[in-house]
Amino acid sequence: MVDDHNKLIARDPKTFKERYAIDVHLRHRVTSVDPHNRSICVVDLDTGTERTESYDHLLLATGSRPVQPFAEAKGLDNLHIIKSLASGIALKQYLDREQVRHAVIVGGGYIGIEIAEALLLRGIQVTMLQRSAYIMHAFDPSMSKRIADGIRRHGVTVMTGAGVKGFEIDKGKARAVIAGGQTIPADLFILGMGVTPNTELAQNAGLQLGPADSIQVNEHMQTSAPDIWAAGDCCQSIHLINRQPVYIPLGTTANKQGRTAGINIGGGDATFPGVLGTAITKFQDTECACTGLNTRTLEKTGIDFVSSEIDARTLPGYYPETAPLTVKLLADRKTARILGGQIVGGPGSAKRIDTLVVALHAEFTLEDMLNLDLSYAPPFANVWDPMVIAAREALKQ
Amino acid sequence: MVDDHNKLIARDPKTFKERYAIDVHLRHRVTSVDPHNRSICVVDLDTGTERTESYDHLLLATGSRPVQPFAEAKGLDNLHIIKSLASGIALKQYLDREQVRHAVIVGGGYIGIEIAEALLLRGIQVTMLQRSAYIMHAFDPSMSKRIADGIRRHGVTVMTGAGVKGFEIDKGKARAVIAGGQTIPADLFILGMGVTPNTELAQNAGLQLGPADSIQVNEHMQTSAPDIWAAGDCCQSIHLINRQPVYIPLGTTANKQGRTAGINIGGGDATFPGVLGTAITKFQDTECACTGLNTRTLEKTGIDFVSSEIDARTLPGYYPETAPLTVKLLADRKTARILGGQIVGGPGSAKRIDTLVVALHAEFTLEDMLNLDLSYAPPFANVWDPMVIAAREALKQ
Repeated sequence: MVDDHNKLIARDPKTFKERYAIDVHLRHRVTSVDPHNRSICVVDLDTGTERTESYDHLLLATGSRPVQPFAEAKGLDNLHIIKSLASGIALKQYLDREQVRHAVIVGGGYIGIEIAEALLLRGIQVTMLQRSAYIMHAFDPSMSKRIADGIRRHGVTVMTGAGVKGFEIDKGKARAVIAGGQTIPADLFILGMGVTPNTELAQNAGLQLGPADSIQVNEHMQTSAPDIWAAGDCCQSIHLINRQPVYIPLGTTANKQGRTAGINIGGGDATFPGVLGTAITKFQDTECACTGLNTRTLEKTGIDFVSSEIDARTLPGYYPETAPLTVKLLADRKTARILGGQIVGGPGSAKRIDTLVVALHAEFTLEDMLNLDLSYAPPFANVWDPMVIAAREALKQ
Repeated sequence: MVDDHNKLIARDPKTFKERYAIDVHLRHRVTSVDPHNRSICVVDLDTGTERTESYDHLLLATGSRPVQPFAEAKGLDNLHIIKSLASGIALKQYLDREQVRHAVIVGGGYIGIEIAEALLLRGIQVTMLQRSAYIMHAFDPSMSKRIADGIRRHGVTVMTGAGVKGFEIDKGKARAVIAGGQTIPADLFILGMGVTPNTELAQNAGLQLGPADSIQVNEHMQTSAPDIWAAGDCCQSIHLINRQPVYIPLGTTANKQGRTAGINIGGGDATFPGVLGTAITKFQDTECACTGLNTRTLEKTGIDFVSSEIDARTLPGYYPETAPLTVKLLADRKTARILGGQIVGGPGSAKRIDTLVVALHAEFTLEDMLNLDLSYAPPFANVWDPMVIAAREALKQ
């Protein structure tokens, strides 16, 4: 646990000024962009004054906001949405102030899982509601089930096929959620239903949009307007497996996109080729990670593929800290090129996805995995890496 | 700690027979191989009877034995060499039986470090002697120093430039070792001076030998004689970076070589292209791993190279379990192709070498590292992977 939220702030305005000579204006809202005159309208939220600023280059890094489809639930005291540091602090203060015995989390994605863990550690009973048939949609159903089992093992109620119909509201508080044909009462409700890109500025300026209305960019992070760039949760990426534009907003991608845009704006030449959709998270002793395409996205693109799903262990069986892990690999049936993979397992399992990440960047086939000189010593690994075993299994198909 | 040494036995003769229909003859010594008549001479050590057996295919998996250059130290009660399960049990029994206060370990390689940790955990004062100027020769001197610092931090005395001249012996026991101009008394002496391949049979049969007198094999694991194959610690490998034959005997390589030979003997077609010399170990809270060529081996091959050495952390600085790690990367100066790398750091650092292992197999350049979609979430990693930071630094040279 992090004891002080100030430790979570990477750079404050003073640091920006002193280290990078960048002026940061907090509490200033940009209301419009004029690509033809290369200018923006900006409002100082404290004084209410509006002014026009011109630019040589403009970077749109407007991020994303959480999805909140329930109009009636707006402004409720005990309904929280986690997005910013401020919203995290607000939730923490609410938990310190109020007696919360039972919380409902709407959404079985990364945010839902991480909030569930945090609440569980405070001794709160947690119910997680997922609209579709399985949680963690970046994973295949069989792997998702393993994640859900790991969450349930700690006493969390995970309900799938439980889309939220609405809330029972009384005196400014939600008292229950109606979902999956049930009315589920709780003291606290948290929405973790994904995010949508903040692209109203870009849209009003006439910029081209991509998937999920994210800002379209090329691999230099240039938008469709001259000298306007975009990076981070507000813009699209290219998926490196099928070369399709995708909207997969993640912090690590945002950093690489920002660096690429910054180099180009500064007169350099950098490209950001795209993403594999790599993601990783944990719930107590259950870790999970995925990269590349999964069964659902492969079926959508119409690629004929084989897959394997194998059970292995993080360390030799005689080693006390050994933990189970399951690896799923997906590969092109004709070429054996690896297209994606998933790991679910105990402590020390998920970060191994990076082996597969590099293999996907290198466009490796299943055969290329067989003789990888991966590191082995009993405190770190088994002689045969689970990824190699999974490749061997997939080759049998 | 493993409580029962029987857990360390992967397969016993009964398992071989029942699961694989393989007859295992323990306590049988093969005394010669006749490639022309396709036969071997074998002695039953219990009955003393000798017989000739013919073969269609012969696999030499004779392994290696530890180096022991001190004739006068042979058979001493308190001088141990660790190689087999039996020698480990003998050491454990000696420690249970005798009061050992101070042990001297000759050799600062993997075995030396792992034995030092085991002795330290039993409360024994340990002195480690290394002939050359730094321990762990697969690493560069600057990285080796970090490993040595990590070992010294736990109270182990690490002496470099301390080649052993001999032992002071009294009543069947070594009383002191003479090294580095000093006479160092101790209760127990352990040799971890590396291994030499068991290739007398191969040599007497007229087979070609490779580096360090290991058995020469092609990538099918065929020796220079028809229908004689070799795999494991007795034979050479090809180093994938410079395509030179090397002798780097490791368990993980032995497994891959054995599988390759087995498939080919069984009529299949498999190849083992070679090794990167990947290795990993730990001493308490200090982990280390390396792969590819290092400064010493690159200078020997005459390749012009650049390198970077950067300090980073396993997890974000605000995360309580964050630990320091140092990454060294070496790359071709002209082509920027990565040639090797090393990690030394705290818990959770060394296994990350696998990212680099796959990158080396893929013949990645430093530029290829910059946009890898490696997994990121605060419990697992920093936004910028240390390997990526190291690549960026090396590109500046």
